[in-house]
Amino acid sequence: MTYDDSNVFAKILRGELPCHKIYEDDETFSFLDIMPRANGHALVIPKSPAVNLFDVDTATLCAAIRTVHMLAPIIRNAMEADGILIQQFNEAAAGQTVFHVHFHIVPRWEDTALKPHTGEMEDSEVLAENAEKISDALDVA
Amino acid sequence: MTYDDSNVFAKILRGELPCHKIYEDDETFSFLDIMPRANGHALVIPKSPAVNLFDVDTATLCAAIRTVHMLAPIIRNAMEADGILIQQFNEAAAGQTVFHVHFHIVPRWEDTALKPHTGEMEDSEVLAENAEKISDALDVA
Repeated sequence: MTYDDSNVFAKILRGELPCHKIYEDDETFSFLDIMPRANGHALVIPKSPAVNLFDVDTATLCAAIRTVHMLAPIIRNAMEADGILIQQFNEAAAGQTVFHVHFHIVPRWEDTALKPHTGEMEDSEVLAENAEKISDALDVA
Repeated sequence: MTYDDSNVFAKILRGELPCHKIYEDDETFSFLDIMPRANGHALVIPKSPAVNLFDVDTATLCAAIRTVHMLAPIIRNAMEADGILIQQFNEAAAGQTVFHVHFHIVPRWEDTALKPHTGEMEDSEVLAENAEKISDALDVA
């Protein structure tokens, strides 16, 4: 599959679509999933275009995992979660719906089941509140 | 949580437990999950001890994701899969059962549902056959 820059993450990177951003550096960008599987469910994407794991170069992938590594404990603390699930889907058969490589950072709690993948849209106010919690935790980290 | 070197992956790394190995380099080790969620379900672990994402250093994590990156298309091709799911669990609440940091590489097919996480033990002959398929694909890559 060749990269199609009309995907929603490419539009978010270009500022053509809004998002609940939590972090950005030279190589990566992070924002909340609008169909979260749990409160505080975030995504990390590289800024350079790549469809998925089969298409991305190693340096870009390492940059993305470095951001995942940095954000995971911040998100766990901000959301008072008991654990963090990392997921990364490659091709539609594996659950990929946006064809710009991305990592999911999903907070987990002992007593809370995951919501379905690509389930319901979350209320924008809830997303804004969670993004603020995480951004505040980042500021003091 | 401090690292406990009596976990099963530490025992596999020390050669105290058998495994269906598919790959090894200076920093990482890969073998098949004995309770696979799909045929060809593999694990990648760093050789150095770390509990999970909250405990591992960035260089070790990058080494692990480099091996995941290299193996994912090999496993997809060897297993004739339609996609690959990457999962990485941190803490029991997120599904972590072995407390040595690891990535799951799970082949997916359009028409095949995932089996449960930590479900049934796979027959050793099936694991051996899948490990051989993947090792053969690695040899010619």
